[in-house]
Amino acid sequence: MAQKPSIPKGTRDFNPEQVAKRNYIFDTIRNAFETYGFQPIETPSFENSSTLMGKYGDEGDRLIFKILDSGEYFSNVKDDVLALTSYKDILKQLFDRISQIVTSYSNLKNDYYDNYDLLISDIRKIIKTKKLYDNGIIDNAEDFDLVIRKYIDINILPEYKLMPNYAKKEIQNLQKLIYNKRINNSLTSKITSKALRYDLTVPFARYVVQHQNDIEFPFKRYQIQPVWRADRPQKGRFREFYQCDADVVGSKSLWQEVEFIQLYDTVFKALKLEGVTIKINNRKILSGIADVIGASDKLIDFTVALDKLDKIGEDKVKAEMLSKGIPEVGISKLQPLFTLSGSFESQIETLKNILSSSEEGKKGIEELSFIDNAISELGLSTATLQLDVTLARGLNYYTGAIFEVAAPQTVKMGSIGGGGRYDDLTSIFGRPDTSGVGISFGLDRIYLVLEELGLFPETVSKNVEVLFINFGEKEALFSLKAIKQLRLKGINAELYPDAAKMKKQMNHANKRHIPFVVLVGEEEINSNNYTLKNMISGEQEKVSLESLINKIKKS
Amino acid sequence: MAQKPSIPKGTRDFNPEQVAKRNYIFDTIRNAFETYGFQPIETPSFENSSTLMGKYGDEGDRLIFKILDSGEYFSNVKDDVLALTSYKDILKQLFDRISQIVTSYSNLKNDYYDNYDLLISDIRKIIKTKKLYDNGIIDNAEDFDLVIRKYIDINILPEYKLMPNYAKKEIQNLQKLIYNKRINNSLTSKITSKALRYDLTVPFARYVVQHQNDIEFPFKRYQIQPVWRADRPQKGRFREFYQCDADVVGSKSLWQEVEFIQLYDTVFKALKLEGVTIKINNRKILSGIADVIGASDKLIDFTVALDKLDKIGEDKVKAEMLSKGIPEVGISKLQPLFTLSGSFESQIETLKNILSSSEEGKKGIEELSFIDNAISELGLSTATLQLDVTLARGLNYYTGAIFEVAAPQTVKMGSIGGGGRYDDLTSIFGRPDTSGVGISFGLDRIYLVLEELGLFPETVSKNVEVLFINFGEKEALFSLKAIKQLRLKGINAELYPDAAKMKKQMNHANKRHIPFVVLVGEEEINSNNYTLKNMISGEQEKVSLESLINKIKKS
Repeated sequence: MAQKPSIPKGTRDFNPEQVAKRNYIFDTIRNAFETYGFQPIETPSFENSSTLMGKYGDEGDRLIFKILDSGEYFSNVKDDVLALTSYKDILKQLFDRISQIVTSYSNLKNDYYDNYDLLISDIRKIIKTKKLYDNGIIDNAEDFDLVIRKYIDINILPEYKLMPNYAKKEIQNLQKLIYNKRINNSLTSKITSKALRYDLTVPFARYVVQHQNDIEFPFKRYQIQPVWRADRPQKGRFREFYQCDADVVGSKSLWQEVEFIQLYDTVFKALKLEGVTIKINNRKILSGIADVIGASDKLIDFTVALDKLDKIGEDKVKAEMLSKGIPEVGISKLQPLFTLSGSFESQIETLKNILSSSEEGKKGIEELSFIDNAISELGLSTATLQLDVTLARGLNYYTGAIFEVAAPQTVKMGSIGGGGRYDDLTSIFGRPDTSGVGISFGLDRIYLVLEELGLFPETVSKNVEVLFINFGEKEALFSLKAIKQLRLKGINAELYPDAAKMKKQMNHANKRHIPFVVLVGEEEINSNNYTLKNMISGEQEKVSLESLINKIKKS
Repeated sequence: MAQKPSIPKGTRDFNPEQVAKRNYIFDTIRNAFETYGFQPIETPSFENSSTLMGKYGDEGDRLIFKILDSGEYFSNVKDDVLALTSYKDILKQLFDRISQIVTSYSNLKNDYYDNYDLLISDIRKIIKTKKLYDNGIIDNAEDFDLVIRKYIDINILPEYKLMPNYAKKEIQNLQKLIYNKRINNSLTSKITSKALRYDLTVPFARYVVQHQNDIEFPFKRYQIQPVWRADRPQKGRFREFYQCDADVVGSKSLWQEVEFIQLYDTVFKALKLEGVTIKINNRKILSGIADVIGASDKLIDFTVALDKLDKIGEDKVKAEMLSKGIPEVGISKLQPLFTLSGSFESQIETLKNILSSSEEGKKGIEELSFIDNAISELGLSTATLQLDVTLARGLNYYTGAIFEVAAPQTVKMGSIGGGGRYDDLTSIFGRPDTSGVGISFGLDRIYLVLEELGLFPETVSKNVEVLFINFGEKEALFSLKAIKQLRLKGINAELYPDAAKMKKQMNHANKRHIPFVVLVGEEEINSNNYTLKNMISGEQEKVSLESLINKIKKS
């Protein structure tokens, strides 16, 4: 029976027009990357799980798509399933033993504690059972709870109710221990060893370390490839989407931050997207502020609260800071921060006052000033550089500059790009002390912005320029000879494949928005001419092959 | 601890040079596709499993990469694991029952058959247990055998030996039934619902049906995307590789076959790869031959044997055909086929003689003649069209033309492209009677051929053209202003990010094969000039910005 065709949620098909528009953005970004000296690399769609897992936090680990090992993967987890089975036996034995002890309780009151110690010892033995404890094999709270309850529900065991609290507690501990590890994780690691790329940065770090002997540092690479995330699909958020990243590793020079700001400006100018704002901040500024207000250990709490300034206002931000244990006297020192506005330079002046006592803060100001001065000298075409001390994107990750690009205010859209400096990305793969800085472009959002503002060039889709109507075998062959010449001149041309009714063929040209149609009948063959019809104006004329080529090329 | 970085077997990293060379091939193919009127589509990397499974045969199903469902997938198989557990209980009960019956055997000889019927009925009841039988949950021979043996090994049960053969057989049947389904398959379908694209043809068929109301037929699409196969990795065979496909659906016109042959010629000419052979055959020719020799039901056997003609020679091919049951009188009719050679036309003449009694064979000849005549009229630039009646690529799939492209004979390489016509691809997704024909280019092999023959253009890699040496902050800023102008002119330019020792910076330029270096010191700043050094000739001169741009552009 025929299947009703569909695609997985969060994924997309792209039709010719969409592909052309996406390629227009890709080509523009790629071209800018290359004039700035970045070179392309590509990495595999899937990496070893060990390369990706643990690099994006617990939430990230959960959102990574894992690939099932090929072949008889089940043999890898057979032992786990067996353990699951035998564990049931063990638990059964345990409760038989409890039952036995409790039964003997009334008979052998004096022996109770002896027997009880034996029970505890049994429980401990079970806890230590290698399969259960060391390997954490059977331990998902919800799932395994059901397995156990199906056979033995300790809450309804009459013996359980009779047990002293100490024994109950020990049994609860046993349960917790089992529940606290997760059977999913354990099974997953045994039946999958590969996972789909989650971003381009970790594979890049892996690439740099793996190929470090072949790489000349500083290494400027760009990478435009899809990534996959098992996010809940929603409007504008997909499970497969492209990232466009440019990074430099192997130098701490701030000229790179300067270059990246110029690069953003170059790309958005080329896309004719005017009025974007390139926001910049520095991790050292945030650390400095936290120092000054006596909340060095609360950097995250402080930043999260500050980030809400626009949305909830000064009072509520202060209240949140207080509630997180940031001292009131510290918050009062921040007063100038809440009204921070104006030019880059004036904001820098305010920060200098606030951060005068923090060495790290002063370093951050120095870096921001350097970048701002250079950009002022070099100029930006259409973008604006703006200092935003509330910007904290990927705070745990970035160590210096933090970038984010906002679409023009006329468009409601989140950030369309972001990036920053990270001082120690490659050390996890065995190469310490390799500073990197990079930026990323958000393809899908840029697409939506260009669409909304009508900024895609009309010629972006490489449509067929001319269709030859098919009047029969002889005419088709004559046409194909001309088509061959047109194609050699780079004109996208085709023959309607069947000698269908002319009306049908003309409709086909119309539906596909093909601007020219050529009619070749016996008369044209005899005179070695072509009847060219302009599908927009309706004009029709008889022309030579040379003239045909020129007229189509010129249009 | 640092991980030693690596990538999964069968996958590859591509460095900048490799990316550039691959893009050169992609761009050439894409450009040709577009001049021939094909338009690009893209489909998601993963499809619903139901879209892919069952479309490529058992072997294909096995080689499809499956993606583990995200979230608590284990809960989906909990019942299976429980069933595994309870099945053990059932088996145990079964053997207890057997044991009981056998024990009663000696006591109640007269009752034996009654009891035995009860046993058989019990066994049947178990067989029919929904969990086991309908859903085929627990049934992998090797895996489950171990589970059973761990608890009950029927072969060593003393009762089993005492059982009559009829009962033994019934038990063996039960085992077989269980074993014959595979727990892997059953579990897999429950913990994965998505799978990575295995080729571009099935997703294209799915796309056509899903979007048929938005598509104007005939629909000419091209698609250049990676596919994934869990093949055993070996030299030249990868688990992730690109396919480049062009197909037309919705017309049976043979002009399309003519166009695809021209398209192959166009692409290989553009790649400067001369001397490729485009082999063509037709499924109808093969069916016709099988008809004629009285082996219509042995088309595959016959084709497989004929395909070996080059390798094992005429006698052995005949022997193989005989051994497959193809009648000797039929084989003798094939005699002219074994020595088939010469021009396309002369081969057609021979085939006409052989196939005179087969309507289908004559239709195949007619189609091949049409195509050959058209190609003769239109001409090919560098490729040769060759009739090859042994060509049977994807026989079960193609219904008309079959294509394969062989690299020039100087290069040892398998086919670098292939394709054919298929009359009914989309019916599985609910759209019958949609004929399609398409071809594919083998990127990896084309890459190897171009590499071996030294056919990649020298300029394929978009390397940095000029590096500005960094002598300090003031000089760097002056340099960046010039770099900005160079980039606006499309020149790939960059500044060395640190004011490192000059020797180090020059070495960097050398190692990266950057052809020009610019030196900007105080003197240059004061005179508003640039010292340009040609890294190949060693020449050095002081030039204006305008002259700098011209000299680099010209090189």
